[in-house]
Amino acid sequence: MHDGALCVLALDVGGTHIRAAIVDETGRIRKQRREAANLSRLPEDASANETVVNILSARIQSMLDACRTETGNRIRAIGLGFPGFIHRGIVRASPNIRGLADLSLAAELEHRLGLPVRMENDAALAALGESRFGAGAPMADLIHLTLGTGVGGGLVLNGALYTGVGGMAMEIGHLCVRPGGRTCGCGNQGCLEAYASARAVAERWRERSHDPEAREVDAREIHRLAAAGEPIACQILEEAGECLGLAIAQAVNLLDVRQVRIGGGMSGAWDQLQGSLHASLNAHLIPPLKHAVSVAPSRLGDDAAILGAASLALEGARYR
Amino acid sequence: MHDGALCVLALDVGGTHIRAAIVDETGRIRKQRREAANLSRLPEDASANETVVNILSARIQSMLDACRTETGNRIRAIGLGFPGFIHRGIVRASPNIRGLADLSLAAELEHRLGLPVRMENDAALAALGESRFGAGAPMADLIHLTLGTGVGGGLVLNGALYTGVGGMAMEIGHLCVRPGGRTCGCGNQGCLEAYASARAVAERWRERSHDPEAREVDAREIHRLAAAGEPIACQILEEAGECLGLAIAQAVNLLDVRQVRIGGGMSGAWDQLQGSLHASLNAHLIPPLKHAVSVAPSRLGDDAAILGAASLALEGARYR
Repeated sequence: MHDGALCVLALDVGGTHIRAAIVDETGRIRKQRREAANLSRLPEDASANETVVNILSARIQSMLDACRTETGNRIRAIGLGFPGFIHRGIVRASPNIRGLADLSLAAELEHRLGLPVRMENDAALAALGESRFGAGAPMADLIHLTLGTGVGGGLVLNGALYTGVGGMAMEIGHLCVRPGGRTCGCGNQGCLEAYASARAVAERWRERSHDPEAREVDAREIHRLAAAGEPIACQILEEAGECLGLAIAQAVNLLDVRQVRIGGGMSGAWDQLQGSLHASLNAHLIPPLKHAVSVAPSRLGDDAAILGAASLALEGARYR
Repeated sequence: MHDGALCVLALDVGGTHIRAAIVDETGRIRKQRREAANLSRLPEDASANETVVNILSARIQSMLDACRTETGNRIRAIGLGFPGFIHRGIVRASPNIRGLADLSLAAELEHRLGLPVRMENDAALAALGESRFGAGAPMADLIHLTLGTGVGGGLVLNGALYTGVGGMAMEIGHLCVRPGGRTCGCGNQGCLEAYASARAVAERWRERSHDPEAREVDAREIHRLAAAGEPIACQILEEAGECLGLAIAQAVNLLDVRQVRIGGGMSGAWDQLQGSLHASLNAHLIPPLKHAVSVAPSRLGDDAAILGAASLALEGARYR
C-alpha cells in the first residue's frame, strides 16, 4: 500500500479520548483510530505534566507502529490538537486537563518520538483545517467556531493560524453578548458560551421546561424538539442564534474577515440557528459589511481539528 | 540645515484641515504646518474623485516646495493618513468626504508628485505611530483607539498594521456594547461610538441636563464638569468608561494583544474614564488575561496619526 505520498500523523487529544489519523498531503485520511484516555481524571499535582507526556508518548508510539504496518508510508511529522492555552509548543494551562502547567509538550514528544511535533489549540486547528481542506481552494482568511460543550474559536489570517501574543486569541466563546446576563463557566457574565454551547442549551431547557425528565435531555434532543416546533426549544435556539450573530459581528467588525464557518455538535441545529443568527449579524455589522459576510456550517464537521493538526504537521514536514 | 537624515513628508487629511509634517527616521517632527481645506463640502457627484486629487496634489506640492526650502533635506517618500475605508492605496469610501468612491489616491499622487506615496486610514495610522514612537522601544502588538467626534481603531500585529481583507478592520467604535441601546450615526444600535465619542457625550449631556444653554456645551466642558463632581457629567463619563472597557475586552479576548492606548480629544478625560473602564475591562476579559492588559493614554497624543503616516512612508523609503 506504500505509494510514496507525504504522510503525517495527526492527533486530536480530548479529556476522555485521543483520536489519531494518518493524513496525506491532499488532506485525505488514510487510516484512523480513536482510543479512550482519561486525561481529565489525572491527579491534580506536580506529577500531571510528566504523566501526560508518558501517556501521550506511549499512545502515539503504538499508533505510529500500527499505522506504519498498515499503510507502509513513512510518517514524516506529527501534528497535535490539544485543549487549552497553547503558546509556542507549550501547554500553558488546560481547563479540561487540570494540573497541567507550562508543559513543553511538543519538545518532550519530539525528544521521545524522534519526529517533528507541532501543536496548537484544538479549536484553532479546526479553523486551519477548514481553511485548507474545507473548500475547493484554500481560504486565506477564516473565522471558525466550534460549538461543543463549550464554544471555541480559531482564526486564520493571510493563510496562517493567528493565536495572539500568548496563545489566547479567538476566545469568541467569552465575548460578552448579554451585559449582566447569564453566568458562564469562566465566571464572567453574559458570555456567548452561556447561550450557544451545547451545555448552555441543555441547562436553559432544564431551567425553563417543566418536564420532570428534563435532566436527561441533551442539546441534540433540543434540536429535534425545535425542529418539531416545540416553542421553548425554538426560543432557546433562536436566542443562541442571536447571540452567535452578535459575537460574529463583533469579530468581523474588528477583523474584516469575510468567511465564517461553524462546527461542533451544535452546528447540527443550523436550520434552527441560521435565521436569528443572520438577522443579528446584519443588525450589528458596520454598514459596508452588511450582507458581505458568508456564515455557513463547517464542511469538514468533526474532521476539521484533526485535518488542521495534519496541516500543521505537513507545513513542518515540508520545511525540513 | 541639511544634515543628510532620511526624511519623509507625512500628512493627516481631515474633512476641514490638512496637516503636514517633515519627519525624520527617529520620529522627530522637523517642520509642520496646518492648512484649512474644505474637503467635506465638495459637490457629491462624479467629479469628487478628481477634485480631491487636484486639491491634494496642489497642496502637497506647495508643502513639499516650502519644506524643501526650509529644511534642505530631500523628501524621500510621502505617507498619508486619510479618513475612511482604505484598501491597498484606494479610498473605497469616506464618511467625512462624501462622493468619493474607489479613488486610487496613492497611485494618482505618486504619478503627479513623482514620489512614493503610501496611504492608510488615519485611525489605523495612529496605532502604527504609537507602536513605533510612543514608547522607548517599538511595541510589536498594539490596539489603539482614537476617541474624537467618532471612535476610530487601529491594530498593529507583529509590528505591521493589520487592516483586514478589505481595509475595514478595527471598527471598534461600532462594536455593540449595549444590545438594543442608543442609535449610532452608522444606523446600528448600541455601538461604542454612541456612548464614548465626544459627540455622544455632548448629546447625552443635552438629553439629560436641564441647562437651557446645553447646546453650547462640548465634551471638553463636560470633562471639566465631571472633574468638579457634577453628578450627571460624572455618570455620562462613567458609562463611557464602562462601554470602553467592554469593547476593549472584546478586542483583547479575540486578539490576545496586551497593550492598548487611547488617544483623541476624549482621552483628556482619562482621570474620569479609567476607573469604570478598568472595572468593566477586567469583568469581561477571560480569566487568564484579567489584570494582564495595559490600557493607558496615548503618549503621542495628536501626533500619533501623523507619525504613523511617517512610519509608513519611512518603510516605503527604506525598501527603495
